Amino acid sequence: MDLFFHEHIDTNNSNLVFDTEESRHLSRVLRKQEGDVVTVTDGKGLEVRVKLENIDSKRTNGVIEESKIHPTTANQIHIAIAPTKNIVRLEWFIEKATEIGVHRISPILCKHSERKVIKKDRLLKIIKSALKQSQKFHLPQLDDLVPFKEFVERQGKGFIAHCSEGEKPELADLNVLNKNNCVLIGPEGDFNKVEVAFALKNNFMPISLGDQRLRTETAGLVACHTLSLINRKV
Amino acid sequence: MDLFFHEHIDTNNSNLVFDTEESRHLSRVLRKQEGDVVTVTDGKGLEVRVKLENIDSKRTNGVIEESKIHPTTANQIHIAIAPTKNIVRLEWFIEKATEIGVHRISPILCKHSERKVIKKDRLLKIIKSALKQSQKFHLPQLDDLVPFKEFVERQGKGFIAHCSEGEKPELADLNVLNKNNCVLIGPEGDFNKVEVAFALKNNFMPISLGDQRLRTETAGLVACHTLSLINRKV
Repeated sequence: MDLFFHEHIDTNNSNLVFDTEESRHLSRVLRKQEGDVVTVTDGKGLEVRVKLENIDSKRTNGVIEESKIHPTTANQIHIAIAPTKNIVRLEWFIEKATEIGVHRISPILCKHSERKVIKKDRLLKIIKSALKQSQKFHLPQLDDLVPFKEFVERQGKGFIAHCSEGEKPELADLNVLNKNNCVLIGPEGDFNKVEVAFALKNNFMPISLGDQRLRTETAGLVACHTLSLINRKV
Repeated sequence: MDLFFHEHIDTNNSNLVFDTEESRHLSRVLRKQEGDVVTVTDGKGLEVRVKLENIDSKRTNGVIEESKIHPTTANQIHIAIAPTKNIVRLEWFIEKATEIGVHRISPILCKHSERKVIKKDRLLKIIKSALKQSQKFHLPQLDDLVPFKEFVERQGKGFIAHCSEGEKPELADLNVLNKNNCVLIGPEGDFNKVEVAFALKNNFMPISLGDQRLRTETAGLVACHTLSLINRKV
């Protein structure tokens, strides 16, 4: 099954017009024919089956024949991560986290962050592509890059995976989890002491991701996969 | 701590001569000085502290002052994976699996494999770099690319993560595991039916990695991380 994306599907209107990108993909890459049926999602849980009527590389349209709503899972996976100096590493994290089932990604700007800007459009494109590839119906939420303190204060609670010394339970050992599990992942060079103290003061619990020393993007992925395994038990 | 690599450390001989690559790195990149102490591993569990004597971009040497042996873990993580069409994806898997703690990677050639050759030297370089970066002392074993059937017959037992229909327990739910946990990960397009049947006949148990549809390299990483979480309990 090929899955297509359409941000605004109105099931009250049976006619669906694809945007230029998906139109091009349907006509030029997959060489779809009139009458072919494709699956489309809006990334908000809706799945529709569409019978193609006019194939055009700029404006393909079709008729919605069936629709189905996929419920969202109760327990959400939320990773707040400092963008990596080499953006490819963050992009890789975003792709893989989407495949594994992250619900929300919040880029955070930390004291040791070498990268201070991100191109959100480009990252959203990667998320959409990974969503289609992994045939999911809920697009993860990608937030704007915000300063660490602002994010922590607004979020109000969660977990912080910092590398400083001290007793920290392993994330995988935690059984009682909230519905919204937010894990903070620091930049290359980790969070600084002020940031760690600030997070603890704001109800963030220090956790360990195991005794390996992981790169930022690997730590993000390990946290995401650990939460997805914990959520299975709920 | 910066960790350096030296394939043949002889603790009976206190003088250690670095190869050209590490010599260059020590002298040109890190600008080490005579008398500086660095940590070196042979990737076989040995960690030595070396006081640098002569810094030269082609041939740096030093004196071993201390040595320590890190025992290997009893339960090994072994991933047999079909190299991805786009080699960058396999390279990512190899880097991340090394960080997480894979013990052995066996590239396998499957019926649906589009990639039929790998450059082992390049992949070994990535493994060594990830080993140093994640400060580990055991270099994962990287095997030659072998045909699927040859590998399965020689291995004799393990798990196969195929995507065909049928009841499959989730890898994360398995409690009783062997000391050598080998998981087979198929290429883009999955294993074919003949391969699945052949694996089952050779004591490979079908398992699921969850209900997500994962790319080859993501499946490999998820299997690796799942095994590393299971191994914590042992």
